[in-house]
Amino acid sequence: MSSFGKNIKFMIFGESHGKGIGVVIENLPAGLTLDMDKIKKDMIRRAPTKNDWSTKRSETDEVEIISGLFEGKLTGAPLCGMIKNTDTKSKDYSDLKIKPRPGHADYTAQFKYNNHQDFRGGGHFSGRLTAPIVFAGAVAKQVLRKYGISIGAHILNIGGQKDVAFNPINPDFSGICDKSFPVIDDKLGLKMQDIIKSTSKNLDSVGGSIECAIKGIMPGIGGPLFSGLEGNISSAIFGIPAVKGITFGQIKDTMLGSDFNDEYYYQGDEVKTKTNNCGGILGGISNGMPIIFTANFKPTPSIAKEQDTVDLHNKENTKLKIHGRHDACILPRAVVVVEAVSALVILDEIINVERI
Amino acid sequence: MSSFGKNIKFMIFGESHGKGIGVVIENLPAGLTLDMDKIKKDMIRRAPTKNDWSTKRSETDEVEIISGLFEGKLTGAPLCGMIKNTDTKSKDYSDLKIKPRPGHADYTAQFKYNNHQDFRGGGHFSGRLTAPIVFAGAVAKQVLRKYGISIGAHILNIGGQKDVAFNPINPDFSGICDKSFPVIDDKLGLKMQDIIKSTSKNLDSVGGSIECAIKGIMPGIGGPLFSGLEGNISSAIFGIPAVKGITFGQIKDTMLGSDFNDEYYYQGDEVKTKTNNCGGILGGISNGMPIIFTANFKPTPSIAKEQDTVDLHNKENTKLKIHGRHDACILPRAVVVVEAVSALVILDEIINVERI
Amino acid sequence: MSSFGKNIKFMIFGESHGKGIGVVIENLPAGLTLDMDKIKKDMIRRAPTKNDWSTKRSETDEVEIISGLFEGKLTGAPLCGMIKNTDTKSKDYSDLKIKPRPGHADYTAQFKYNNHQDFRGGGHFSGRLTAPIVFAGAVAKQVLRKYGISIGAHILNIGGQKDVAFNPINPDFSGICDKSFPVIDDKLGLKMQDIIKSTSKNLDSVGGSIECAIKGIMPGIGGPLFSGLEGNISSAIFGIPAVKGITFGQIKDTMLGSDFNDEYYYQGDEVKTKTNNCGGILGGISNGMPIIFTANFKPTPSIAKEQDTVDLHNKENTKLKIHGRHDACILPRAVVVVEAVSALVILDEIINVERI
Amino acid sequence: MSSFGKNIKFMIFGESHGKGIGVVIENLPAGLTLDMDKIKKDMIRRAPTKNDWSTKRSETDEVEIISGLFEGKLTGAPLCGMIKNTDTKSKDYSDLKIKPRPGHADYTAQFKYNNHQDFRGGGHFSGRLTAPIVFAGAVAKQVLRKYGISIGAHILNIGGQKDVAFNPINPDFSGICDKSFPVIDDKLGLKMQDIIKSTSKNLDSVGGSIECAIKGIMPGIGGPLFSGLEGNISSAIFGIPAVKGITFGQIKDTMLGSDFNDEYYYQGDEVKTKTNNCGGILGGISNGMPIIFTANFKPTPSIAKEQDTVDLHNKENTKLKIHGRHDACILPRAVVVVEAVSALVILDEIINVERI
Repeated sequence: MSSFGKNIKFMIFGESHGKGIGVVIENLPAGLTLDMDKIKKDMIRRAPTKNDWSTKRSETDEVEIISGLFEGKLTGAPLCGMIKNTDTKSKDYSDLKIKPRPGHADYTAQFKYNNHQDFRGGGHFSGRLTAPIVFAGAVAKQVLRKYGISIGAHILNIGGQKDVAFNPINPDFSGICDKSFPVIDDKLGLKMQDIIKSTSKNLDSVGGSIECAIKGIMPGIGGPLFSGLEGNISSAIFGIPAVKGITFGQIKDTMLGSDFNDEYYYQGDEVKTKTNNCGGILGGISNGMPIIFTANFKPTPSIAKEQDTVDLHNKENTKLKIHGRHDACILPRAVVVVEAVSALVILDEIINVERI
Repeated sequence: MSSFGKNIKFMIFGESHGKGIGVVIENLPAGLTLDMDKIKKDMIRRAPTKNDWSTKRSETDEVEIISGLFEGKLTGAPLCGMIKNTDTKSKDYSDLKIKPRPGHADYTAQFKYNNHQDFRGGGHFSGRLTAPIVFAGAVAKQVLRKYGISIGAHILNIGGQKDVAFNPINPDFSGICDKSFPVIDDKLGLKMQDIIKSTSKNLDSVGGSIECAIKGIMPGIGGPLFSGLEGNISSAIFGIPAVKGITFGQIKDTMLGSDFNDEYYYQGDEVKTKTNNCGGILGGISNGMPIIFTANFKPTPSIAKEQDTVDLHNKENTKLKIHGRHDACILPRAVVVVEAVSALVILDEIINVERI
Repeated sequence: MSSFGKNIKFMIFGESHGKGIGVVIENLPAGLTLDMDKIKKDMIRRAPTKNDWSTKRSETDEVEIISGLFEGKLTGAPLCGMIKNTDTKSKDYSDLKIKPRPGHADYTAQFKYNNHQDFRGGGHFSGRLTAPIVFAGAVAKQVLRKYGISIGAHILNIGGQKDVAFNPINPDFSGICDKSFPVIDDKLGLKMQDIIKSTSKNLDSVGGSIECAIKGIMPGIGGPLFSGLEGNISSAIFGIPAVKGITFGQIKDTMLGSDFNDEYYYQGDEVKTKTNNCGGILGGISNGMPIIFTANFKPTPSIAKEQDTVDLHNKENTKLKIHGRHDACILPRAVVVVEAVSALVILDEIINVERI
Repeated sequence: MSSFGKNIKFMIFGESHGKGIGVVIENLPAGLTLDMDKIKKDMIRRAPTKNDWSTKRSETDEVEIISGLFEGKLTGAPLCGMIKNTDTKSKDYSDLKIKPRPGHADYTAQFKYNNHQDFRGGGHFSGRLTAPIVFAGAVAKQVLRKYGISIGAHILNIGGQKDVAFNPINPDFSGICDKSFPVIDDKLGLKMQDIIKSTSKNLDSVGGSIECAIKGIMPGIGGPLFSGLEGNISSAIFGIPAVKGITFGQIKDTMLGSDFNDEYYYQGDEVKTKTNNCGGILGGISNGMPIIFTANFKPTPSIAKEQDTVDLHNKENTKLKIHGRHDACILPRAVVVVEAVSALVILDEIINVERI
């Protein structure tokens, strides 16, 4: 399934080289005036650019709203946003059906769908499907703002080069969303860009990790055991293509209980923790401190280097060289996707009412 | 909610110091003869022992089957297993209601349940609730065996001391489940035990990580985006108290695409990958290789060292010293819990039929 | 599955002649003091009595609360209530495995569970499973009372003999729950009892219908299309064994739009409808008027008359005479079950908060 | 929510007078070649025609497939079908926001969505939303055909005028779907049309009931208690606007057990029932006989007669005369909608595999 959510349900549809891609979102609160400029801004953050680290495909990613909006406001009925596919050069992908790309979903999709999947450009498994996710997340962020909740992320690591981490007590992500290369320390960001460039020159790709912070969430959200916040967030974050790991707070194998436990104190009338090693979640429930997690991305599987694969038609081993437009590193574009999915899952957790 | 599952649904109930704890499991296949000895064996693997690294609480953890079993076989109706609580010294926990233990769910549960939670021994948030999970998982493992699927785990790391990792192409976990200290290399295990002992002497606790392997799973299980196997597994694994991170395969921030991509080849008629860096999952779908993941556990929050906390009654800062029986490291007992949850989530993924 | 619910989830377990039956209910609001006397009263309304219309089985149906209650109050953790089976004469049912009773689930359960179902007394399909439903419903009613919502039902029809119907504008069900034969007009109830007695004498059984009213529900509950209140209520009501039909409001094939439409008017500041033909629901959403529906019950399939059936062992046609204790009409006992299920589904619709 | 389904999930979006309406369907089996002509035929059965009993709105209802279809076959990825709205004269509906139409969702939607709903033409509550349902159902029917399952329906009653009922043992619906007025006995159908015409002349509307049969369903589908087939079917059928009742089989308040029970016999090697009063479902599980149910429709609420209503703006009682294009009876067009929803819910019940 390409959907999630208990209260806010959303369903992604479309293929990379089909007519279009989109999303339907149910149970959004009626009455919110959508700020289309903010949505557009997030769409641009995800869109490929002319930079060195990004694919050359020139999608405009304009979202047409089909339903759920009336006189500029959410109606409460399902919101459907669609993006037409305009730049779909299918010929690039013609032999993917026979020679699965290592690290891609080509082989597993073919197995699952008995060879009937739309293989062009990864089809429904394409990273392009994150565009409607960003749209949905941009809407969710606007709803969350009404509850005083804000979400920000940055590249924490590319190929071993780290950015400084968020202050877990009071993460400051103002301004990051305006950067074309979203890091906290731009000098460290330049080093990351150097890694991407040299990796790209070597016909290779590189992964890394993104740190995300959710501020303003009230205590008491989540629940015990299999309804814990970590589980619900992780389940959604793994829905982002290429994510292979997630950790909450400052978990390390070497930490002792006396290091890791976050001691309580009163700040005025409010109970706070001195540290935030648990990432804002205890027993699956928010404690009122910022929720902090890090998502690990594998390197883009599309590399220009020759790789071993199989010829499924002739049932023999063969070689593959992937041509076409691919990012050597998807993390700069993935930051806003992590924010979007976080916004959707948090909205799903807190929404109880139809009106806002 | 204390439940999960789409096809196999299960619901955990009970509190640490209430009458009992248990689980109800729906949609198990009718006809399987339950091997009660195997279930008992798994229950013992989780139960506290007299070892140095384990709590002294002497629960017997005998599961009484209330429903769903007839003439030794699963009936297809909901299976209910109950464990009576026998050793419940409530007085140990009397002031937890006022002074929340750092790192525990005391404060968040109190907030969520408006001070009405059963706070004795952590109540519904107690690690004791993993006992019915292990029971449910032991049943699930028996069902999975009919499909040729087996699951094993081991301690990968305690306090920085590593065990050798599974061979990701062909993980061998035979024999580990018979060990009282479940590692691959017993000599490394002894070093871990030394860490636990010295940590315990220092009135502290220590965390680490557990590696789990799922063998025999057919390709094509899972789905795109938010129905991916990683998301579904992670969501369940985070249901285990103290888990704060999960990674699939061999993900590292420094790996390049040419290192990480698993190249394909034919082994006879079967498509295999030379490496298994992706942990058996591509595009959210199993590729037929073993599924491998690592779960990170925070240190047990119950430490005997004095800690800062708040007095919620008098609304002032205070100190807390936790008395009573607590493991300095829960990982040895958590290995079978990770196996159990993995079995349940994989069974939920693959079960399509009522009969077996 | 033996469960339902989106927010309030509950799962029924047990078999007629197993160790016990019970229910686990998730997400009840913390803090409510359970009135055990009210629960007991509802359990007695469902329990078989010494009357002419009821089975002679002398179950006491005492609910033991295993979890979710602490110091008399709901904790917010799953509430588990169990009823031990004490009077289980299994020999009565020994040949049901081979000769399926017409109108019962014997044959379909055998097919679904490949002959592994617990066939004794209907197993998990027994009407006895309504006991934990009544318990769960009695809890739900107490929660609903906090929201100003009350629920009542009565026998509307047995074998063609009608009771007077509720006033759909202001249904009065006070007092009915104290009657051993729950009708509005006791004189009509006596006629129904005559029908039951004569049917019983003829070794036959008789069905009928139960009318249920839900008062105090706020407007705006429910939703469009497949989230409509009618669908959600009906889905749950058909979970009661023997229910084969449900109608909302005063629907009749002969009514014209000008008869059926409920015209609006202002009663003070509140919008009301002059009639309530729609049963309080328009477009799947409550309009603030009482919700009224009628559930149709088939006659108890257990009749003492000889019936044609098959011998599944010898694969031949045969005859069957059912012995043992059976109600000639289950409607008097089913009234409280309809109330219970209604309470659970309405609570599931309206509950948004963890506290009350 | 405007969605349902456990395995096959589908989500309806759109408003009567917005840009378009549509549906996304998840988990359809890959590989089926869609017969677009059959889909078109069902769309035409639902579409308004120039007949006396139908609205004059001239929608073409052409479905554009956005995703999930590749080279004419289902891919396994979400199928999105969209219908553009072309004939949307919004001015007709301008004062509905202030004066709710009796019997419509105007008032309840306004309450639920705090006056932000798209009120034009009923918005998301419009009967027009059944168009994407018919599309989805037409796809589901094609999948079901692969399993040997077929579905047919007819008008059973309009305004008291009955059609002959299906033979419950072997319902014959061949040919009905080709009739512009879908009844079994055309002479009775002409009498129904007379009723519609005279009702229309009286500026009134009329309801009735539709009988639906599902043939070829294997025994063993469904489950006990709240997973019963009746509950799942009813829940979906009430998703059709104007449905207010549903009954399975031949349930009547006056029937005795000896009449109602369906006796078993062997027909060759197969177990059959002599009668089919239970409508093919026992204990919530299919018994292999045709599933038969009847859905009751209220009269179209849009009538041209003057009605009492309220002015929500000035908070006073007022009168309303509804103008515009409306069916005096929607049953002829609703027959294919009942088939569609039945197909979707049955497909959701039986689908276990990704391939077909």
